[in-house]
Amino acid sequence: MKPTIETLNLFKLASGDEFFLQLYQFIGKKRNKKVYIQSNLHGSEIVGNAVISQLIDFLSTLKKSELEGEIWLLPVCNPLGTNQRNHFFSSGRFNSYDGKDWNRIFWDYEKICHNLDEFVQENLKFDSLTIQENFLQQQKIAFSKQLEKINHPSGAPLFEQYRYQLQSLSMDANYVIDIHSSSNQCIDYLFCFPGEQENSAKYFQIDYGILMDTYDGDAFDEAFMKPWLALEKKFEKVGRKINVDRESWTLELGSGMKMNPQSVTIGVKGIINYLVKKGVLKLEHYSLISNEITLVSRQNIRNYYAPTGGMIQNRLSLKTRVQAGDKLYEILSFNKRGYLPEVIQVCAEKDGFVFDVSTNYSVNQGDYVLALCSINLEHLC
Amino acid sequence: MKPTIETLNLFKLASGDEFFLQLYQFIGKKRNKKVYIQSNLHGSEIVGNAVISQLIDFLSTLKKSELEGEIWLLPVCNPLGTNQRNHFFSSGRFNSYDGKDWNRIFWDYEKICHNLDEFVQENLKFDSLTIQENFLQQQKIAFSKQLEKINHPSGAPLFEQYRYQLQSLSMDANYVIDIHSSSNQCIDYLFCFPGEQENSAKYFQIDYGILMDTYDGDAFDEAFMKPWLALEKKFEKVGRKINVDRESWTLELGSGMKMNPQSVTIGVKGIINYLVKKGVLKLEHYSLISNEITLVSRQNIRNYYAPTGGMIQNRLSLKTRVQAGDKLYEILSFNKRGYLPEVIQVCAEKDGFVFDVSTNYSVNQGDYVLALCSINLEHLC
Amino acid sequence: MKPTIETLNLFKLASGDEFFLQLYQFIGKKRNKKVYIQSNLHGSEIVGNAVISQLIDFLSTLKKSELEGEIWLLPVCNPLGTNQRNHFFSSGRFNSYDGKDWNRIFWDYEKICHNLDEFVQENLKFDSLTIQENFLQQQKIAFSKQLEKINHPSGAPLFEQYRYQLQSLSMDANYVIDIHSSSNQCIDYLFCFPGEQENSAKYFQIDYGILMDTYDGDAFDEAFMKPWLALEKKFEKVGRKINVDRESWTLELGSGMKMNPQSVTIGVKGIINYLVKKGVLKLEHYSLISNEITLVSRQNIRNYYAPTGGMIQNRLSLKTRVQAGDKLYEILSFNKRGYLPEVIQVCAEKDGFVFDVSTNYSVNQGDYVLALCSINLEHLC
Amino acid sequence: MKPTIETLNLFKLASGDEFFLQLYQFIGKKRNKKVYIQSNLHGSEIVGNAVISQLIDFLSTLKKSELEGEIWLLPVCNPLGTNQRNHFFSSGRFNSYDGKDWNRIFWDYEKICHNLDEFVQENLKFDSLTIQENFLQQQKIAFSKQLEKINHPSGAPLFEQYRYQLQSLSMDANYVIDIHSSSNQCIDYLFCFPGEQENSAKYFQIDYGILMDTYDGDAFDEAFMKPWLALEKKFEKVGRKINVDRESWTLELGSGMKMNPQSVTIGVKGIINYLVKKGVLKLEHYSLISNEITLVSRQNIRNYYAPTGGMIQNRLSLKTRVQAGDKLYEILSFNKRGYLPEVIQVCAEKDGFVFDVSTNYSVNQGDYVLALCSINLEHLC
Repeated sequence: MKPTIETLNLFKLASGDEFFLQLYQFIGKKRNKKVYIQSNLHGSEIVGNAVISQLIDFLSTLKKSELEGEIWLLPVCNPLGTNQRNHFFSSGRFNSYDGKDWNRIFWDYEKICHNLDEFVQENLKFDSLTIQENFLQQQKIAFSKQLEKINHPSGAPLFEQYRYQLQSLSMDANYVIDIHSSSNQCIDYLFCFPGEQENSAKYFQIDYGILMDTYDGDAFDEAFMKPWLALEKKFEKVGRKINVDRESWTLELGSGMKMNPQSVTIGVKGIINYLVKKGVLKLEHYSLISNEITLVSRQNIRNYYAPTGGMIQNRLSLKTRVQAGDKLYEILSFNKRGYLPEVIQVCAEKDGFVFDVSTNYSVNQGDYVLALCSINLEHLC
Repeated sequence: MKPTIETLNLFKLASGDEFFLQLYQFIGKKRNKKVYIQSNLHGSEIVGNAVISQLIDFLSTLKKSELEGEIWLLPVCNPLGTNQRNHFFSSGRFNSYDGKDWNRIFWDYEKICHNLDEFVQENLKFDSLTIQENFLQQQKIAFSKQLEKINHPSGAPLFEQYRYQLQSLSMDANYVIDIHSSSNQCIDYLFCFPGEQENSAKYFQIDYGILMDTYDGDAFDEAFMKPWLALEKKFEKVGRKINVDRESWTLELGSGMKMNPQSVTIGVKGIINYLVKKGVLKLEHYSLISNEITLVSRQNIRNYYAPTGGMIQNRLSLKTRVQAGDKLYEILSFNKRGYLPEVIQVCAEKDGFVFDVSTNYSVNQGDYVLALCSINLEHLC
Repeated sequence: MKPTIETLNLFKLASGDEFFLQLYQFIGKKRNKKVYIQSNLHGSEIVGNAVISQLIDFLSTLKKSELEGEIWLLPVCNPLGTNQRNHFFSSGRFNSYDGKDWNRIFWDYEKICHNLDEFVQENLKFDSLTIQENFLQQQKIAFSKQLEKINHPSGAPLFEQYRYQLQSLSMDANYVIDIHSSSNQCIDYLFCFPGEQENSAKYFQIDYGILMDTYDGDAFDEAFMKPWLALEKKFEKVGRKINVDRESWTLELGSGMKMNPQSVTIGVKGIINYLVKKGVLKLEHYSLISNEITLVSRQNIRNYYAPTGGMIQNRLSLKTRVQAGDKLYEILSFNKRGYLPEVIQVCAEKDGFVFDVSTNYSVNQGDYVLALCSINLEHLC
Repeated sequence: MKPTIETLNLFKLASGDEFFLQLYQFIGKKRNKKVYIQSNLHGSEIVGNAVISQLIDFLSTLKKSELEGEIWLLPVCNPLGTNQRNHFFSSGRFNSYDGKDWNRIFWDYEKICHNLDEFVQENLKFDSLTIQENFLQQQKIAFSKQLEKINHPSGAPLFEQYRYQLQSLSMDANYVIDIHSSSNQCIDYLFCFPGEQENSAKYFQIDYGILMDTYDGDAFDEAFMKPWLALEKKFEKVGRKINVDRESWTLELGSGMKMNPQSVTIGVKGIINYLVKKGVLKLEHYSLISNEITLVSRQNIRNYYAPTGGMIQNRLSLKTRVQAGDKLYEILSFNKRGYLPEVIQVCAEKDGFVFDVSTNYSVNQGDYVLALCSINLEHLC
C-alpha cells in the first residue's frame, strides 16, 4: 500500500520563499475511522519524525485489507519551529517573533460553544455515532469562521493561520497522536486524558503517563479532546452515557535535539500496537501487547528551579530514586562581592524519582534544573 | 524634599553578577495614601524612565508639606528585559529563556480567593476604609505563600520570583501607574479600568484611552485592580456601595526604542496633574487641567496582519483618518515560483484612524502591520 | 522586453522545506557586458528590493535594442537573513547559528592566487579584453574547487555554500551593484573603490560616498573587485596600464527595516543613469545627469559608542552639522548604587555632520549611538 | 594561604545594573613569575569554572612558601556570554548584539608593532629577561592607547572595552591558561603553540593536542603569544636565540553546557602538575607526571557539515575509530515535493577517530555534524 502524499502551502515568508506541510495518507478499504499523527510541533523535539518515517515504511508493507480506516501522518509539522536556530541549538519552543509557545495556541471549540445544553436536548434521540457527527458538523461550522477571519483584509496573526491548518487536518479524527519530547533530557512517557481513554494507555508500552486532570484547551491534544469530553459530561448529566470514540495522546519520547533509537522504537511499536487494539490495523498473527503503565497526576511532577545563579554539579541522574531530604544537586555559585565561590546543596522535598533533567548545567536564578516524580514507589518496576 | 533611595536585590545570574531594583520614595507628612509608579517592564519601552527621572527632579523641588501620602517610583524595573539585545534591537518583550511576556505573568488574587462572599458578609458592618484594610490583609496573607514557595528547595521559576518583588512593592498602593510604550510606533494613550476610575482619566491630558472591558488578571495593572473590582461588585450585589480608593493605570507613551520628548512631557505633566486631582500633591497656585479623553473599547482597535510575505510600502502614516475601503498599505511580494514580483493592496475594513504602525516594514505572512482605531469620528478633535 | 526568470535551489532546511534564489535576467541584443544587481544581503536592509522591483518594471518597458549587454537582478538574495525575526525586528545582519555577518563571508581570489606575477608575464602580449578573459578563466578554475569541497562528504558550512551561489552568478559581471541600507537610520550614500571607478560615482546622483581605501576582501563588493584591482596594479608595476572594465558598488539607501520612497527613487534613478553612462542602456532622448558627490575616506566616519548604560536623549538629528565640542547627545543613566539618575553629555570630537543614528535609544555600555562624518564642510551643498 | 579577591567593574547595562570581574590572586614569597588562568569566555563552556574553583580550594591549602610567583584566577570571565539564554540554552558563543565571537576580538600587538627590527637591534646587548621586560614595556605603552580611545567621547564598542580588561590582567603573565570546552560534545584536548612550549604539553595529562601552526592573533591565547613568538623569530634571524619564558594554553575540557566531573578532574590535576613542572608550585613529595600527548596539526581535524536538511541518526559515537569509506552518520531527510522521506548516508573521507559531535541532531543544510581527527592511528593508545 502506497501513501497518498499531499503538499500543503503553509505560509510565505518575507523573502517570497514558502513553507509547506507534507501529509502522508494511508487509506484502507473502509474509511470509517481516522487516525492523525504529527511530530515536531516544538522545534527541538525531533524524535517523532523518525517514528513517523518508520511508520510510513511499515504501513507501506501492508495490504489495503490490513488497514481499516485511514491514517494521516504529518512529520516536521512546524517548519518555523524546526528550522529556528540560536547558536547551534534548536530554540523553536516558542515563536521568536511573539514568544508564543507553539503548543499553547490552539482553538478550543468548547470556549465558544454556548449552546451545548441545547445541542444535548436536540440530540438525545440520536445514537452515539450520529451525535458525534452532528457535534463535529457544528464544530466545523464554528471553525470555518476562523478561515473567514484569516481571509479578511485585517487577516490574522501567524499563530491563528498556523493552527487553522493543523486543526483542519485533525479535527475529524478519531485518534490523535502528537509526538513530542522533553526540551531537556527525559524518560519516555505519555499524556493521557481521563475517561475511557485511560484503558487504552497500556497499549503504548510506555511505563509512565501523566493524567490530564486539568487542561485549558490551548495545547494541541487538549484543543482536540476538550470539546468531546465536555459533550460526554453534558450527556452524562442528563443521564445518557454516550460512547465517544475519540482519543487524544501526546507521546513524550526522550530528549530534545536527540534521536534516541530506543525512544524511536518505543514510539513505533507502541503506536502500531495501539492501532491494532483500536481495530485500525488488522494484522494477522500479531499478538497484542499490554504493558502496565503508571498514570500519575500532574501534581506528582515537581519542577526544581535554581535558587541562585551558578553551575549545576553532582546532580542525580535520570530515573534515580530519592527520598525526601536526599541531595538532588549542587550549585557552584560565584559572586561579585569579594567572597569565595560557594557550593549550595538542594535536597528533595518528597520521595520520588528523577523524571527529567535540564540539558544546560549553567543556571541563572530561577532557571529549571530537574523534575521529580513523586509516585507511590511500589509501582516502579 | 529628598527621596529615600532603596536598592533591592532581584536575582543572581549564572556568572555571579546580580540584578537589582532601585526604588525612589518620597514620603509626605501624612502617609495616608500611596502612589506606585514603574517603567520599562517591557525591554524596549523606555520613555517612562525619562518620565520617572523628571518626576524625581520635580518632586525633589517640593516641600514635605506639599506631598500628602507617599510616592514610590521604580524606573528600569526589569533589568533582564531592558538589557536584552538581539542585533541592535531591544527584544525584551518576552523572556528569551521561556518566551513569557513580561507583562502576562502576574499573580491575580481573585483567582485563588474563594471566600469572597464570606468576606463580604463578615465586613458588611465596617466602613470602606476598614474593609479595604481587611481585604488587603487577606490578600497579603495569600501572597505570602508565594514567598514560601520561592523559599522551598524546589524554588520557583524566575517569573514568579520577579513578580513577587514588583507586587510586594505595589500591592498596598492606592494608585498604580505602569508606564509602557508601543513596541512599535504609536500615539500616546492610556488603559483605564471601568468604574469610578473613568472619571479620573481626563486628568492625564491624553487624548485617547482604552477601556479595559475584559481582563484576565495576568498583566500588572490587571493583577493590581482585578481583586478590588471583584470586591466592589460583590458588595454591590448585596446592596452596599463601597468606595474603593484604588486606581490602576497603564500609560502608553509613544514608540518603542525611542525617547520622544513630547511623550515624556505628556507623561510628566499628566501624572502631576493627576496626583494634584487625587489630593496627593498639594501645590499652591496650581490650576488643575482636565482634558477631554476618548475612551474606546478594546474591540475598537483592530490589528492588521500581513496576508502574505513581503515588504510594506505606501502605508498610511500614524493618525491618518480612513474610511472603510480606503487603501491602508501595499505589500511588495516576491515569489520563488518564476513569476514577477507582485504588489498587493490592503484596505480598511471600517472607518477609523491609524493608531499604531509596525517599526519593521519587512513582513513574513501573519506579521503585524498596523492597528486601526474605529471610533465614532465626531469624537476626534 | 520580458525578463527570463530562473529559480535556483539554495538550501534545504531541517524541516525539508527549501529556500531559493530567483533571478531576473534581461538579455540585450549583444551580450558583451554583464551587470549584476542584488539586494537584501543583510536581513533588515530591504529598500533595494523595491529598487530592483522598479528596475524590473522599467526594463520591461524597453525594447531589446535599448539594452546592450545583459542585466541580472537578484532581489531578496538572502532568505535566511530576510526571514529572521527576533521580537518584531529583523535581526538578520548575522547568521543566528554561527554569528557570521552575511557580508563578511565571501571568497577572495586574490588571497589564494599565488601566480599573479607569472600571469602578468604570460599575458603582457595580449590586449586588455583578452587579459581579463584569461584572468576570469583562471579565477573560475580556482573557484570551482569550492564546489568540489561542497560536494565532498565533509561538505561545507552554510556560509560557503551560500557564497558559492552568489559569487557564481556575479563573478563574470562587469558591473556589480549590491544594494544595502544602514542597519540603523542613515543618509543615502555609496561605497566606491579607488581608481577609474571614482569617475563613475557621480552618475548615481547620491551626495556622499565612502572611498574604499582599505578592504580585506570578505565583503561582497570587495571579493568581486579586489582581484581585479590587484591585477591592474601588477600590470602597472611592469609599466602596462590595462583598462579593466569592472566596477563594484555598494549603495547604502537609507534606513534599516524601512522602505523610504525617496531612497527607492534615488536608487532607481541613479542606477538607470549609471547604466546609460556605461553604455548598457541606450535610451533615446535621455539626458545623462551628473551629480557632484563628496567622496570621503573611511577614516572620516567616526562611530560614537555609549560610555555607559542608559537611555539616549536630546540627540542631534541626521545631517545636523556640528563643531568640535558641540553636544551630540545625552545619556540618562540609572544606577543600582543608591544614587539619583544622572544625565551625561557627549560632545563631538571633530567638526562634521551627523551621518547615521541608532534606531534604538536604549544603550548598554559600548552600544552604538551615532556616526559623525568629518569632511571639509565647504564640500557640503 | 588566602587569595586576595578583587572585584573589577566591567560595564554598566542599560538598566543601570553592572557586570563585574572577580579576580582571585595567590601571591607567593617571590613575585618573579605570573600565571593567569581564566574560564568561561564562551558562555556555554562552563567546566573551567569548576576547575578554577577547585584550584582556589587547593591553593588555599598551601603555604606561601609553596608558591613561587603569583597565580591569578578569573572564573566566569564573561558575564554577558555566560548569562545569555535563548530558550533553555547557553547561546553565548557570540555577542547577540553584533555577532562577534567572544574569542575572536583580541588585540594583537604584533599587528601594530612596526619597529620590531629596530627593537631587536637596540636590545641585542641585553639578556633574555631584560629583553622581555623591554618588549613588555613597549607593548604596554601601545596598549595604553586602547584605553585612551575608550576614554574619548566617541568611546569604543563593547568588545574593545571588554578585551582591554582581560588583556590588562594577563599581558604581563608568563603562563596563560584559557579554559574552554567544545560548544558541542568533545574529548578533552588542548591547543599548544609551536616551539619550546611543545615540551610542556605532556604535563597536562591530556591525550590530544592541536598544534597552532596557523593563527591570526584574534583569539585570546593567540593575542597573548603571537608577539612573543614574533620576537623570538626576529632574534633568531639575527642569530640570537633568546629564551622567552612565556606560554599560552587553551584547554578544551569536554562538552558545552555540561559539568563533566572527569573533565574537571583532568583540568585541575593537569594544571597543578604543569605548575609544578614550571617551578611555580614547590610541593614536597609531589611526583611530577608526564603523559604522552599526541599533537596534531589543525588540518588533521576535519569538520563534517550536513549535505542537506534533516535529522541525524545512527551517528558513530565519540572516539570511534573509522577507516576511509566507513559510514559516519545518516540524515533522515524530509521534503516538500511529494516524495517519501529519504535516508542519506555520509561516509568518512579519511581514516581517523570521532573527535567531536554536535549536541543537536536536527540540521539545516550546512549545519555542523561532527569532526574527525585523522592522525596516524598507531599513536592512539
